[in-house]
Amino acid sequence: MSKNKIKIGVAGLGTVGSGVINLLENNKNEILKRSGFEIIVQCVSAANKNKKRPCNINKIKFYEDPIKMVQSEDIDILVELIGGESVAKDLVVQALEKKIHIVTANKALIALHGNELSKICKNNKCDIAYEASVAGAVPIIKVIRESLNSNQIHWVAGIINGTTNYILTEMLKLKKDFGKVLKEAKDLGYAESDPTFDIGGIDAAHKLTILSSICFGIPLNFKSIYIEGIDNIELDDLNYAKELGYVIKHLAIGRKNSLGIELRVHPCLIPNSRLLANVDGVRNAVVISSDAAGPTLYYGNGAGSYATASSVVSDIIDISRKILSSSNRSIPFLSYQDKELKNKSILNINEIESRYYLRIRVANKPGVLAGITKIFGSKSISIESILQKEDLVNDKYVPIVLVTHKVVEKNIIDALQNIEKLDVVKGKIIKIRIEELDS
Amino acid sequence: MSKNKIKIGVAGLGTVGSGVINLLENNKNEILKRSGFEIIVQCVSAANKNKKRPCNINKIKFYEDPIKMVQSEDIDILVELIGGESVAKDLVVQALEKKIHIVTANKALIALHGNELSKICKNNKCDIAYEASVAGAVPIIKVIRESLNSNQIHWVAGIINGTTNYILTEMLKLKKDFGKVLKEAKDLGYAESDPTFDIGGIDAAHKLTILSSICFGIPLNFKSIYIEGIDNIELDDLNYAKELGYVIKHLAIGRKNSLGIELRVHPCLIPNSRLLANVDGVRNAVVISSDAAGPTLYYGNGAGSYATASSVVSDIIDISRKILSSSNRSIPFLSYQDKELKNKSILNINEIESRYYLRIRVANKPGVLAGITKIFGSKSISIESILQKEDLVNDKYVPIVLVTHKVVEKNIIDALQNIEKLDVVKGKIIKIRIEELDS
Repeated sequence: MSKNKIKIGVAGLGTVGSGVINLLENNKNEILKRSGFEIIVQCVSAANKNKKRPCNINKIKFYEDPIKMVQSEDIDILVELIGGESVAKDLVVQALEKKIHIVTANKALIALHGNELSKICKNNKCDIAYEASVAGAVPIIKVIRESLNSNQIHWVAGIINGTTNYILTEMLKLKKDFGKVLKEAKDLGYAESDPTFDIGGIDAAHKLTILSSICFGIPLNFKSIYIEGIDNIELDDLNYAKELGYVIKHLAIGRKNSLGIELRVHPCLIPNSRLLANVDGVRNAVVISSDAAGPTLYYGNGAGSYATASSVVSDIIDISRKILSSSNRSIPFLSYQDKELKNKSILNINEIESRYYLRIRVANKPGVLAGITKIFGSKSISIESILQKEDLVNDKYVPIVLVTHKVVEKNIIDALQNIEKLDVVKGKIIKIRIEELDS
Repeated sequence: MSKNKIKIGVAGLGTVGSGVINLLENNKNEILKRSGFEIIVQCVSAANKNKKRPCNINKIKFYEDPIKMVQSEDIDILVELIGGESVAKDLVVQALEKKIHIVTANKALIALHGNELSKICKNNKCDIAYEASVAGAVPIIKVIRESLNSNQIHWVAGIINGTTNYILTEMLKLKKDFGKVLKEAKDLGYAESDPTFDIGGIDAAHKLTILSSICFGIPLNFKSIYIEGIDNIELDDLNYAKELGYVIKHLAIGRKNSLGIELRVHPCLIPNSRLLANVDGVRNAVVISSDAAGPTLYYGNGAGSYATASSVVSDIIDISRKILSSSNRSIPFLSYQDKELKNKSILNINEIESRYYLRIRVANKPGVLAGITKIFGSKSISIESILQKEDLVNDKYVPIVLVTHKVVEKNIIDALQNIEKLDVVKGKIIKIRIEELDS
């Protein structure tokens, strides 16, 4: 008779870990009815056994040290939900060397150490699955690796950080500035007490590292990503963008163009009519444009205990099915066969082409615009539209909002440097890229 | 050395068949780089060898009779793209009995004969894969079977017929009536020359049969689905709905409620703010609400040569991976283990609860509304809002548009029958259900 039980160990009992324990318990029957086998949580580890948790671990063997757990227990799969890099990496390496498969929700681990872990997996004939590392409940990793696997992918663009999307959504809705909304987000638990990774774009860049590798067949390459956060976005810009028919979103973008691959995380203006423009609050969504399927979009909860657990458990079931059938033919870790992962030219941000939203504070007197447009002309930048706004508080200076046609970023940067030197211009110019997201 | 080639036969060289041949040829390298194995089209079949086609079949063995092809050729997978029921079914049965795996895009085949085919698969230890049968390029079958497999699914709702969605989108955009837009859709190839299956909702009902089985663990059950088409939707209703903050879409809905399962295909009003309300033209989208993941949405091209081929080829790759690894542990055909498929109570449409949009033509004189609201009161139907419209063409009768609170369908039907008997009411009352799509 064939084996019909899978034994797992869960390392880390925070939000996601508790969700996994609860989901496996609450939906045990549903899972069994679909998969045909049982998943047994044989052991768990966390720093403090007696901490109050939203899950019941009374009947599960407990370890304070996850490494000791892996060394002592005979398990099929280790579910790594500790997060961060150092402990998680040691733990995963030890488990793989004991021929234990890995399921993880840890984007930093995969983005920064995945290339190395892939080799250790191969040597030990083990899998490492990471659906939950990007976009929570949205099965974007499976879709790219298993559904779009006959497609050449042109570009991927996603709202993949819930905190930044929540803040931008609330700023516009409540007409409040960044600082106020960030404080409220912290109070509501939508932002970490130290939100630097989210606000600054690092979290989204970890996820884009993973998405771009499996979309384009390049090794994981976090260092090549251009990163901007949302800390410079002002309520004024959200309002002006709206007036122009756009919404400002924090996007992660990977795109093949004729020169190489663009990898960038930054705020963008998106036309109102795009579905991505209507993805609000803590929800995530990813659009993929590929040659056969065309544009496809995937949307759902980007975080949360059960939403992330849903993806973790789907990975557990996939690996279990493989263990129980002793299948030797895995879906490649990074979607492409290892030998096909090629370092391709990643473009510097200076080389990308975009349209731009620019907000310039200028002296409220005649002839100002002429000086500015002359500089734009010298850099071959043409202007699509101009909004001249009154400033009721301070009429010595007024904002001008400009939208450019497509131009190489380097030219914009040069032009803005020259414009900022003009006497009639006050302060730093706000520059936000416009993404059409057309296929 | 392990086998590294998969031999397939393609039956049917219409839009989808040509797309599969082209995609396998054009993206051969991309597919090989991801999968690590080669897919070889060993043979094809179609009614007429010399018909002009957008794909090159010169080097492929050709059969006029697909059954003869299956009998004569040694292939691993048969790709059934003939469509319809009779030939396709015989062909698939013959192939399965020869232990050839099946990939199909044929929703009628799966919806109407899937229960029987499932048994034949099991007896012959073969798989039948059908990603392309629902929503074209959107990988909704994989998502339900492999990503949401730890979830209890509450409801599924989708725009899964491109023709009806195109017609409703164009009617509102161009302010044209149903007949005119249908004619244009035929001319553009967005509607079949006999569009009954699409317009009447049969096509969407085939697809809902499949979706509801894999969401809720019930055998395929086409006959239980309540079906309405879009042929009664008038431009006036699209305009009034817009005024009320809604869009009219043709939806397929499966929902578990406390009494049983609702399965229905019909036009609905959807609040403007929902993502589904913004899915236009020939695009498809499916929303699934489930206990762990929460609401998730999947969007893309619902038809088209390459879009559908993308799903067909992903199925070929999945089955190939299984063949090459001699894995014995399949994902269950209908997502749940066969013995767990249970006939659950499917509600009659009379038993569902909904809010309703009603348009009534009434005599243009005082006191009319009192008679109508009295009847609503007697059936415990309460009214949320009323639009009274002038009718500039014919002021003897004017339209009243009503939106009700939630009520059981039976009560609405009874009330409308009584109201239609009133002297002051002219003609049939237009009744369209309102779907909130909230989780």
